[in-house]
Amino acid sequence: MGMTVTEKILAAHAGKDKVVPGELVNVKVDLALGNDITAPVAIKEFSKIGVDSVFDREKIALVLDHFIPAKDIASAEQGKAVKNFAQKHGIVNFFDVGKMGIEHCLLPEQGLVGPGDLVIGADSHTCTYGGLGAFSTGVGSTDLAAAMALGETWLKVPESMLFVFEGELRPWVGGKDLILHIIGDIGVDGALYKAMEFAGPAIEKLSMDGRLTMANMAIEAGGKNGIVAPDEITRAYVEGRVKKPYTFYKSDADAVYSDIRRYDASKIEPLVAFPHLPENTRPVSQAGLVELDQVVIGSCTNGRMEDLRLAAGVLKGKKVSDRIRLIVIPGTQQIYKQAMREGLIEIFIDAGGAVSTPTCGPCLGGYMGILAKGERSLATTNRNFVGRMGSPESEVYLCNPAVAAASAILGRIAGPWEVE
Amino acid sequence: MGMTVTEKILAAHAGKDKVVPGELVNVKVDLALGNDITAPVAIKEFSKIGVDSVFDREKIALVLDHFIPAKDIASAEQGKAVKNFAQKHGIVNFFDVGKMGIEHCLLPEQGLVGPGDLVIGADSHTCTYGGLGAFSTGVGSTDLAAAMALGETWLKVPESMLFVFEGELRPWVGGKDLILHIIGDIGVDGALYKAMEFAGPAIEKLSMDGRLTMANMAIEAGGKNGIVAPDEITRAYVEGRVKKPYTFYKSDADAVYSDIRRYDASKIEPLVAFPHLPENTRPVSQAGLVELDQVVIGSCTNGRMEDLRLAAGVLKGKKVSDRIRLIVIPGTQQIYKQAMREGLIEIFIDAGGAVSTPTCGPCLGGYMGILAKGERSLATTNRNFVGRMGSPESEVYLCNPAVAAASAILGRIAGPWEVE
Repeated sequence: MGMTVTEKILAAHAGKDKVVPGELVNVKVDLALGNDITAPVAIKEFSKIGVDSVFDREKIALVLDHFIPAKDIASAEQGKAVKNFAQKHGIVNFFDVGKMGIEHCLLPEQGLVGPGDLVIGADSHTCTYGGLGAFSTGVGSTDLAAAMALGETWLKVPESMLFVFEGELRPWVGGKDLILHIIGDIGVDGALYKAMEFAGPAIEKLSMDGRLTMANMAIEAGGKNGIVAPDEITRAYVEGRVKKPYTFYKSDADAVYSDIRRYDASKIEPLVAFPHLPENTRPVSQAGLVELDQVVIGSCTNGRMEDLRLAAGVLKGKKVSDRIRLIVIPGTQQIYKQAMREGLIEIFIDAGGAVSTPTCGPCLGGYMGILAKGERSLATTNRNFVGRMGSPESEVYLCNPAVAAASAILGRIAGPWEVE
Repeated sequence: MGMTVTEKILAAHAGKDKVVPGELVNVKVDLALGNDITAPVAIKEFSKIGVDSVFDREKIALVLDHFIPAKDIASAEQGKAVKNFAQKHGIVNFFDVGKMGIEHCLLPEQGLVGPGDLVIGADSHTCTYGGLGAFSTGVGSTDLAAAMALGETWLKVPESMLFVFEGELRPWVGGKDLILHIIGDIGVDGALYKAMEFAGPAIEKLSMDGRLTMANMAIEAGGKNGIVAPDEITRAYVEGRVKKPYTFYKSDADAVYSDIRRYDASKIEPLVAFPHLPENTRPVSQAGLVELDQVVIGSCTNGRMEDLRLAAGVLKGKKVSDRIRLIVIPGTQQIYKQAMREGLIEIFIDAGGAVSTPTCGPCLGGYMGILAKGERSLATTNRNFVGRMGSPESEVYLCNPAVAAASAILGRIAGPWEVE
């Protein structure tokens, strides 16, 4: 019996020929990630382990992105603790204010993750790098502490689920809609501790940005990781960018899956996840009248170039509704600069949008667009839990960047075809 | 006996031929200003007055700039309260997220203040508009409430102080240094409830941005207002921009001043105000070794085009020190866009700076760069009181944008001549 791409990566990092679902393995870590919220906790735990130095100062990434530039004194203290640790241990990949971006946008962009890598991060959306054909998963801060000391971690090999998208994508449908479609189908615990493998003709044509978006939200179905087997699109993305060796793993034809689901991509419309769970999906065309107060375009889910291009394409020459606060957050400084060069930032400003420095910002209720009681935000982010973006009596709806842009113009949930 | 420019504006708005210092006058208000912190208080008071509508929906400006885009739920509620009030009363000049800027950068830019106007604002730096030859001063939120209802307010006519700058400015010396020089000379209560009139050859050549900076900090010497008599530089700024009638008032030759101070501008060096008062000024050349953690370029004091051009000129092709977090905050959306078109934003990003959406941000400890315990920030802002930018155990130093940029590169307080 063959192995899935996930099993192959785990086996390689466990020093084994084969692993099977349910097996506990110790695996070598290619990159361990922490941010301004989780790293301070990990650093405290690290100090209790009793080692003098980190396992490899090039294989740890510390990114200040959640509440940074510091939104308050507590955030400033967190940033300071991480900076002090990074300086003490000579952490090469420490990203402070001005050098930073949203961690899951930044690490692939900087070539710090390659296909076949095993990455753990003290952030639930660490699963993003599966878009590159890496195994990556979120862990707790104490796991991060141990990995920073030892360079390895333990994992239970997950069962794999296969999601096959046949056919061609409709206009305005992207990775965000495909992953929302899956979550709508299987529910927010439908892939609990499973590897979620995305495949099929529609995925083979999907851009890297779209793949990163899909893998990013694997956790929203409870998945241990999300993954797309690397191919030529992956190669085009990593060549020249990833300086270290990398390996393209693919699932064997006789790999075993706990579940295989086939979807006709041509039947999937742009979707919106209604409050308060990502599984509450409806086609935009059936959303009904949902008036909005705020639209957020950004996050580790949809803050990349393709996302900003899509949104700007819809917003070009148009104004956002008077009732709407549009907040656009490029994922990284490079994305910000590139968007500026392409004239996208000017489009956002001319439309009446605020453009933020790269940060997670309002996605998890940090800052830069928190909601008051009774307010409603549509967002390209990843979670719409109760109070996620502010008041426990506010609402968050999730969608793709084109839908977000169109809705900002019309002041209600709307498809981009309505403003063409 | 003649009148000063300040007295003439007050007399005109009191419907009198003459006013004298110490006299209490009721004056008509051309513009009443509130922000996201002060307007909610004013709105509550307004509701107690028992009038149905505001005195003039075109003569009230409500600007969300301090903690907006909302940094937390409380800020979001404040923004919502102001938005609701603005909608209910049809306030023409309501500036929400995406349309906003720092109030004192935005109002002149938008042509909402003209020479000879009388402006009150529930923000201490409302004195900024004196740079345009207007009388403007900060008031409490209850005064704002009354003015929104009645269109007038009462004032005690201040005595005037005259500050004459002879000679030519040295390189790298601007409005910020001149006002810091005054405050260093007379102290933070040296102009208590006085009109501070700036004049002389160096002021006559000073740009409008520089004049706005000077008037902005009149309050830091305790001044009731700061003012520069309008001239051709004023005319060039307001023509085509201010759509309503305006009047150029000038002080009479026999106007009475409580104090006249003459300075030789050619002897003034770029200055830094050391913690914890703006009066603690020292020439940059005598600052000694002051290592920094953060540099902030922005605020209602120095967030205008001239400021960004100066800073970018110093930073072009250079990198900020590893130890520094550089945060650049354009004052308004227009300034942001213009800076982008001129390539300044790219210079800031390439140098390793974070560029924020327009906001007061860290200046008053709001967000976007709050300081941890023991940290030191150099800033182009206006106040360096204990804890102003974060931890009560942090320090803030004030300076001009060129000094800020050079210091960001060297990681310590430094003059721009050190990085040329």
